[in-house]
Amino acid sequence: MPEASLKTRLHTVIFGTEPGAGRNFDIFLIVIILTSVAALFVDSIATVHQKYGDWLFAAEVVFTVLFTLEYAARIYCSPNRRAYIFSFYGLVDLLATIPTYLSLLIPGAQHLLIIRIFRVLRVFRIFKLFHYMSEANVLIRSLMSSRRKISVFLVCVLTLIVVFGALMYLIEGPENGFTSLPKSMYWAIVTVTTVGYGDIAPHTPMGQLIAALAMITSYAIIAIPTGILSAELIQESQRSITNKQCDSCKKFGHEKDSEFCRHCGEKLLPPSS
Amino acid sequence: MPEASLKTRLHTVIFGTEPGAGRNFDIFLIVIILTSVAALFVDSIATVHQKYGDWLFAAEVVFTVLFTLEYAARIYCSPNRRAYIFSFYGLVDLLATIPTYLSLLIPGAQHLLIIRIFRVLRVFRIFKLFHYMSEANVLIRSLMSSRRKISVFLVCVLTLIVVFGALMYLIEGPENGFTSLPKSMYWAIVTVTTVGYGDIAPHTPMGQLIAALAMITSYAIIAIPTGILSAELIQESQRSITNKQCDSCKKFGHEKDSEFCRHCGEKLLPPSS
Amino acid sequence: MPEASLKTRLHTVIFGTEPGAGRNFDIFLIVIILTSVAALFVDSIATVHQKYGDWLFAAEVVFTVLFTLEYAARIYCSPNRRAYIFSFYGLVDLLATIPTYLSLLIPGAQHLLIIRIFRVLRVFRIFKLFHYMSEANVLIRSLMSSRRKISVFLVCVLTLIVVFGALMYLIEGPENGFTSLPKSMYWAIVTVTTVGYGDIAPHTPMGQLIAALAMITSYAIIAIPTGILSAELIQESQRSITNKQCDSCKKFGHEKDSEFCRHCGEKLLPPSS
Amino acid sequence: MPEASLKTRLHTVIFGTEPGAGRNFDIFLIVIILTSVAALFVDSIATVHQKYGDWLFAAEVVFTVLFTLEYAARIYCSPNRRAYIFSFYGLVDLLATIPTYLSLLIPGAQHLLIIRIFRVLRVFRIFKLFHYMSEANVLIRSLMSSRRKISVFLVCVLTLIVVFGALMYLIEGPENGFTSLPKSMYWAIVTVTTVGYGDIAPHTPMGQLIAALAMITSYAIIAIPTGILSAELIQESQRSITNKQCDSCKKFGHEKDSEFCRHCGEKLLPPSS
Repeated sequence: MPEASLKTRLHTVIFGTEPGAGRNFDIFLIVIILTSVAALFVDSIATVHQKYGDWLFAAEVVFTVLFTLEYAARIYCSPNRRAYIFSFYGLVDLLATIPTYLSLLIPGAQHLLIIRIFRVLRVFRIFKLFHYMSEANVLIRSLMSSRRKISVFLVCVLTLIVVFGALMYLIEGPENGFTSLPKSMYWAIVTVTTVGYGDIAPHTPMGQLIAALAMITSYAIIAIPTGILSAELIQESQRSITNKQCDSCKKFGHEKDSEFCRHCGEKLLPPSS
Repeated sequence: MPEASLKTRLHTVIFGTEPGAGRNFDIFLIVIILTSVAALFVDSIATVHQKYGDWLFAAEVVFTVLFTLEYAARIYCSPNRRAYIFSFYGLVDLLATIPTYLSLLIPGAQHLLIIRIFRVLRVFRIFKLFHYMSEANVLIRSLMSSRRKISVFLVCVLTLIVVFGALMYLIEGPENGFTSLPKSMYWAIVTVTTVGYGDIAPHTPMGQLIAALAMITSYAIIAIPTGILSAELIQESQRSITNKQCDSCKKFGHEKDSEFCRHCGEKLLPPSS
Repeated sequence: MPEASLKTRLHTVIFGTEPGAGRNFDIFLIVIILTSVAALFVDSIATVHQKYGDWLFAAEVVFTVLFTLEYAARIYCSPNRRAYIFSFYGLVDLLATIPTYLSLLIPGAQHLLIIRIFRVLRVFRIFKLFHYMSEANVLIRSLMSSRRKISVFLVCVLTLIVVFGALMYLIEGPENGFTSLPKSMYWAIVTVTTVGYGDIAPHTPMGQLIAALAMITSYAIIAIPTGILSAELIQESQRSITNKQCDSCKKFGHEKDSEFCRHCGEKLLPPSS
Repeated sequence: MPEASLKTRLHTVIFGTEPGAGRNFDIFLIVIILTSVAALFVDSIATVHQKYGDWLFAAEVVFTVLFTLEYAARIYCSPNRRAYIFSFYGLVDLLATIPTYLSLLIPGAQHLLIIRIFRVLRVFRIFKLFHYMSEANVLIRSLMSSRRKISVFLVCVLTLIVVFGALMYLIEGPENGFTSLPKSMYWAIVTVTTVGYGDIAPHTPMGQLIAALAMITSYAIIAIPTGILSAELIQESQRSITNKQCDSCKKFGHEKDSEFCRHCGEKLLPPSS
């Protein structure tokens, strides 16, 4: 089966992440994606566009042809084509090529090429390659096991934003830039997150008092998610020291100095490794 | 007693939080409240108001009638009517309906409908429903047991604000926007909380030096509440681990879900308390 | 000794912090100080000054007379007058009265009354009264034992500020608001502490790149003092659980499950309390 | 060998950090560097330059001569001259003198004297002198052992910046200040790090919605590095406690300064490693 073997070899190269051809292809791809995104970046600067716009357009066309060929190869060698086409990466791979073709018909459509930036997310596969994933997993596990506490915190923050935003709309009013309730909420978010652009700012003494209250509250509150996550990560790291397994009930999660399984009461054997 | 049974059934539906009619009613109510608040939001945008103002006013009237009926039903089926009427939720429920009626007499009074936003706080009852409350309790308990440390911290922050605010009023003076002591305090709060609108900013070199000192101090200080809360939350989570005692070897330090002592292998008895 | 007994009684009332006359006097004094400062605050608002300036001036005179009498009484009943007069509180007590007298000779001198605000620091004595001091001590002890780590951190921050400030002065130059090196440093402090007024902001692409680097560095760095303090406070709180004393070498600081003193090897007795 | 002994003595004084001549020289040098930098600072202020420009220029020449002599002495007494000349400090030492000489030929070149500021980094040698280094090492070790987690976090932040920057460029466009993709990224960095200058801010409702999302995400995310570092520092400090073993009862978990086992009272032996 020469066709099948070509497909298998292509699949190993394109979808594979093992050292060798698979990893090299991924790294090469990331470099190409970053280069094409860099071209987009400099092309977005008006002065550069005027001088080198034609060259950059040519580069864009080359990149698009490369990406189209890669997309076709991915479909060709994919064992489950439907699954690939409608996966997140499949859609991004498609959307990373279309705008250039569209711009031949509709001028200006190449602005949508910016979607190509999302191909950079493929960098996360590189992570897996280089075993960074387990660290990311610790972070994700910590975030997951503290998701309820974080939800409670986010509800408090949203309540603060709604309450202070509404108050400021009533107190300051449209003449001071708080032209609508959504704009007031925008101000509240800018303030509570301590970004503070200053494009909308209270002008009345009463508004400044309320704003000061909002700031002090948010200043005190920012400690909460940090505290939650610190506590979780510490527990996580203490838990990870103790990956002893019980020989009888096969459960993990015993502390370093445990002598008996805390689930079935059997004696724990010393770790062989 | 048909009336009493109607009252009891109504009470179960309106005030109850158990799965079934009680929970469904609460969820339905939250949806209605959020819709009415959304209507308020879009109506506050001038362009939307001009186009759809009449439709949104009609929706507002319908919502108000619904909330009035709900308020009447709550009073009717409440075992202790006085307690409900003067409770926080009772007052908010009342204030969420009045502004529409007022606006028939006094034009513009419907702006007060914004008070209805506070009905969203009923979301916290949903929390109880979905057992998020215990997580919130951990947070509240941690905040309570570190309230003294946090008070000490807040007094330091307020001292900083007063001292730096007063200094800037003396140094910068009204010609640089520090027109009064309260305004100077407002500037100090905006700076110490790192919001930094830039509506008032020091212009003299001396003022900028003092402001820089204030910023570096506040930068160093922001670590304090986070540290306090982290330490508290970690202790809280360790406390939940370590207050089980083995009846056989009398040792402490078992995790919440341990069934057997990890030191001697005996079955752990459930805590008597 | 009627005079001596009057002195002793006065001293107990004015300097004492025990419940009864001493504490009541302190609380009364704080109220008076806060009222006089509030008067200063509202008097600093131009419109209030125009309307009620005379009344507020009268109040100021009354407060000054009261504070002068108190100052005289403090000197009179102080066992070590020299020590009191040149102590921090003694100087603030004096400076809180002088500006009013000065303003009779030199118009405008009453602006210095703002020094009176520092008398609010007397609030810290109230802390001692209400036993908040031990919590403040934990914080101070944690800060002291991590002072070296915090110094290392502050030196890093200052290096960042100097390096980025100098770079921006070279890159942006006076035409973009970076008129001098100190102003560049001011900009760097405003940026690194994430206050971000926006009164000075980079305009050249190169300057914006450097500024972006400064922001990301400072964003990563803000975690350091928080981590330091969290670790310290957790250790502190774990240490404070274990205030067992050794009967033999009288040393404190044994862990909960210690059976022998870790300093002299003697058996620890169970705590009597 | 009088020349060799002079060289050795010079080397001890100039490069040495031991108490005595070596340390004194370093401290003296830091003072000189700071003074010359202070002169640069005040000279960069236009009004000071007009008045005292000549005096400050004279001082600058004196400092430059001193630094040139020091640089020559360093080369002379260095055992490995090549290594010193091309080391970081060697290059900074050279670059700290050149601009003054250049300014004799090219007017304005003395602006490059700002490079001299990097000589302040020599302060880090003072750290070593005063044994602050071990604390800095704890920080560096913690940062190193959490470098993977921090990398994962930084990739998330960069993804956020790229995604939100690109979105804002599409939504807001050049007419609202988002003139190019790099400028959009600059805005995203200013926002995500909560600096918030306000020089570029969203004006369309859609842009403000996206900006609000970016702020809330970054607000939730700032907890992650702090949590990582806190957990690491706590483990670091606990590690220093628990790697001592009792020779008699074989139990671990003794504090650094323990002399006797807290479980059996036996004398602890110093660790062999």
